[in-house]
Amino acid sequence: MAELIIAVETADVRFPTSLDLDGSDAMNPEPDYSGAYVTVRTSSGAAGYGLAFTVGRGNEVEVAAVRSLARLVVGLPVEEVLGDLGAFSRRLTGDSQLRWLGPEKGAIHMAAAAIVNAVWDLYGRREGKPVWRLLAGLSPEQLVDLVDFRYLQDALTREEALDILRRAEPGRAQRAEQLLSEGFPAYTTTPGWLGYSDEKLVRLSQAAVAEGFTQIKLKVGADPDDDVRRMRLAREAVGPGIRIAVDANQAWGVPQAIDWMRRLAPYDPYWIEEPTSPDDILGHAAVRRAVAPIKVATGEHTHNQVMFKQLLQAGALDVLQMDASRTAGVTENVAILLLAAKFGVPVCPHAGGLGLCEMVQHLAMFDYVAVSGSMDNRVIEYVDHLHEHFTDPVRIRRGRYLAPTAPGLSAELHAQSAAAHRFPEGAVWKRKAA
Amino acid sequence: MAELIIAVETADVRFPTSLDLDGSDAMNPEPDYSGAYVTVRTSSGAAGYGLAFTVGRGNEVEVAAVRSLARLVVGLPVEEVLGDLGAFSRRLTGDSQLRWLGPEKGAIHMAAAAIVNAVWDLYGRREGKPVWRLLAGLSPEQLVDLVDFRYLQDALTREEALDILRRAEPGRAQRAEQLLSEGFPAYTTTPGWLGYSDEKLVRLSQAAVAEGFTQIKLKVGADPDDDVRRMRLAREAVGPGIRIAVDANQAWGVPQAIDWMRRLAPYDPYWIEEPTSPDDILGHAAVRRAVAPIKVATGEHTHNQVMFKQLLQAGALDVLQMDASRTAGVTENVAILLLAAKFGVPVCPHAGGLGLCEMVQHLAMFDYVAVSGSMDNRVIEYVDHLHEHFTDPVRIRRGRYLAPTAPGLSAELHAQSAAAHRFPEGAVWKRKAA
Repeated sequence: MAELIIAVETADVRFPTSLDLDGSDAMNPEPDYSGAYVTVRTSSGAAGYGLAFTVGRGNEVEVAAVRSLARLVVGLPVEEVLGDLGAFSRRLTGDSQLRWLGPEKGAIHMAAAAIVNAVWDLYGRREGKPVWRLLAGLSPEQLVDLVDFRYLQDALTREEALDILRRAEPGRAQRAEQLLSEGFPAYTTTPGWLGYSDEKLVRLSQAAVAEGFTQIKLKVGADPDDDVRRMRLAREAVGPGIRIAVDANQAWGVPQAIDWMRRLAPYDPYWIEEPTSPDDILGHAAVRRAVAPIKVATGEHTHNQVMFKQLLQAGALDVLQMDASRTAGVTENVAILLLAAKFGVPVCPHAGGLGLCEMVQHLAMFDYVAVSGSMDNRVIEYVDHLHEHFTDPVRIRRGRYLAPTAPGLSAELHAQSAAAHRFPEGAVWKRKAA
Repeated sequence: MAELIIAVETADVRFPTSLDLDGSDAMNPEPDYSGAYVTVRTSSGAAGYGLAFTVGRGNEVEVAAVRSLARLVVGLPVEEVLGDLGAFSRRLTGDSQLRWLGPEKGAIHMAAAAIVNAVWDLYGRREGKPVWRLLAGLSPEQLVDLVDFRYLQDALTREEALDILRRAEPGRAQRAEQLLSEGFPAYTTTPGWLGYSDEKLVRLSQAAVAEGFTQIKLKVGADPDDDVRRMRLAREAVGPGIRIAVDANQAWGVPQAIDWMRRLAPYDPYWIEEPTSPDDILGHAAVRRAVAPIKVATGEHTHNQVMFKQLLQAGALDVLQMDASRTAGVTENVAILLLAAKFGVPVCPHAGGLGLCEMVQHLAMFDYVAVSGSMDNRVIEYVDHLHEHFTDPVRIRRGRYLAPTAPGLSAELHAQSAAAHRFPEGAVWKRKAA
């Protein structure tokens, strides 16, 4: 009897992070970090865990979208799914009726991400490998089979993708060993939330440097005078040798972004992240031309590989910030890593939120071992929130992510955390309501 | 006591259109035309009706998204809402938590459209005017106040938008009268669904010409040999003087689109619609350069004004096909009409589905009276489905939309139709299940 997927369970879990203004930025003043948390179960008792991250209200829509997609998954043979994860993704994103809600964007695409990630977690557990090692053990042909080239051919062909992967084959084992011994560089956003006082900003910036980080990030975009002051304070606090990225979280139009960055330029910002609408490819390109040598970074809201393709084609970014659950999970992110490698743009994944650090570390490490083969100018975002709720939390030492060694994608919540934070019926939310 | 919005009701209504292969195309083989149907009710007993169109499965996610947005609306004073509909849209699309599901795209943005459209319907009823006349009676300043210029400034400033509207002020009354006497040109997609036989294609094409249409549309993109044959048959059936548009519904990558259109070119296709991914601005531009003088048309899946801005900036389209409920309803469509006017691109709205003809006629007619002031190369799509379920259905005479005269946006369903088609509990669906 073949092993079948017998359930795709989903839960609305929310953490009341808005109470401390952790995570506050120009567009997200009061996020409650949340997730549509997915458990895929098989007829032999195995399980895989994934999630789509949201910031509170609306998580119930994400849960509804997962439920709608779940009907396409329950009953499938596990071997068939894991044997062709490219086809599995197309099944989720290509349903002729459900795709109307996207196509390949927004709530329905993020729901696909949660399920795809849970299935990769299942796959890793089955193989006894963390997902970065599972991916890095696949052949170039197997990896390329994950990619849907329909809309990519004008920028990346199957043959070019194979070439990229074959060039990186020598040295895979050595780079994996290096990750296990040295980890992967991180940067920290912990000091720079908009809601923090100047004193807290300075203290946390200095603490980050003392902890070994060589890059920090400040949120900007609410008030230009405040931003100049905060940028100056941060620069004075960390000195000239530390990179300070700034992040506007989409607050500006194109001309405003250019003006604002001219005011911050004297304090040597390393990159400006999300200077304008995440959909504005041509706008990002215009900002990049105007603010160079300050780099332009974007990607956490870039909704699919077609958008990333164009950002690269248009010369709109210096730093590609993939997200674990905005595009359709691990599978689509393999395609995006290949696109970035084709254009020679470093990938520095977006993280923070709920479980994003846990998931994206696998993508960055796979990229290093088997795609780009490089750590130059590559850093994974790190935010020190909510890791204690995961069974295999990220481990940071001296400003670096240690390579995960447990099987899977590291997105499993402790059962008691998931239960206590279920919205609205979990103990944490009942206590808040009372 | 001020009049308040006291309810935003939503219903999952679906029509089993897949039974007849009406609406079948390269990406939507079996649509069940559906809608998240919204009724906004006020404390004085008034109501407005709107909907977000979907093609079946997933309509439940749209309904969930409307419910999530409804919390932002219930309790607002009606005067305040109608007095600043620009702010009302920003309230729906800018909620700091809900916007994570977009921003401004996919299920959450379409839900905003349904609510915004219902509120415009309410406004029209209150003023005793069809929405096209309501809009065409607003001053240039009032119209420009509807627009969110944050991400548009690099392509269209407030002053430029005012200039466009002021230039069109003379002659408003005359053009409105002309619409009432002559209507607005339509084209028909009825002959060209992929699921129809050659015989039915020829018969319906000839019937369309006999009814007075000067443009028809064929679905293409499943099989090139079939498409060449169908295009040849249609051209032979209608003769050289009738425009035949073709619609690939996103089926192709960029090089494939170019090759396929070279094969159809001998039969003089007027435009190629959605040749590739709706997100691929640069891809559309490449196709347009390669297939000229065949025109490129797109827009029914273009998810917001920032995407339309770039399609125009990149020279990616000849025909802009706005949709009534893909972007955030009437309000955002005013901005898109202004962008199109700035770039001199004609707007030919997408219609068909459920209630789209009913809603978009108001947009095209407003455009003619108060924005572009032109009917040149402008046609509204027409599909002869499901109109009988609306209280104020479109009226087509000799290939033209007659101007609606009843107050509102024409999206109200007959109560018995809405009840019978509720999914899954309505009589139509219960009968199908039995």
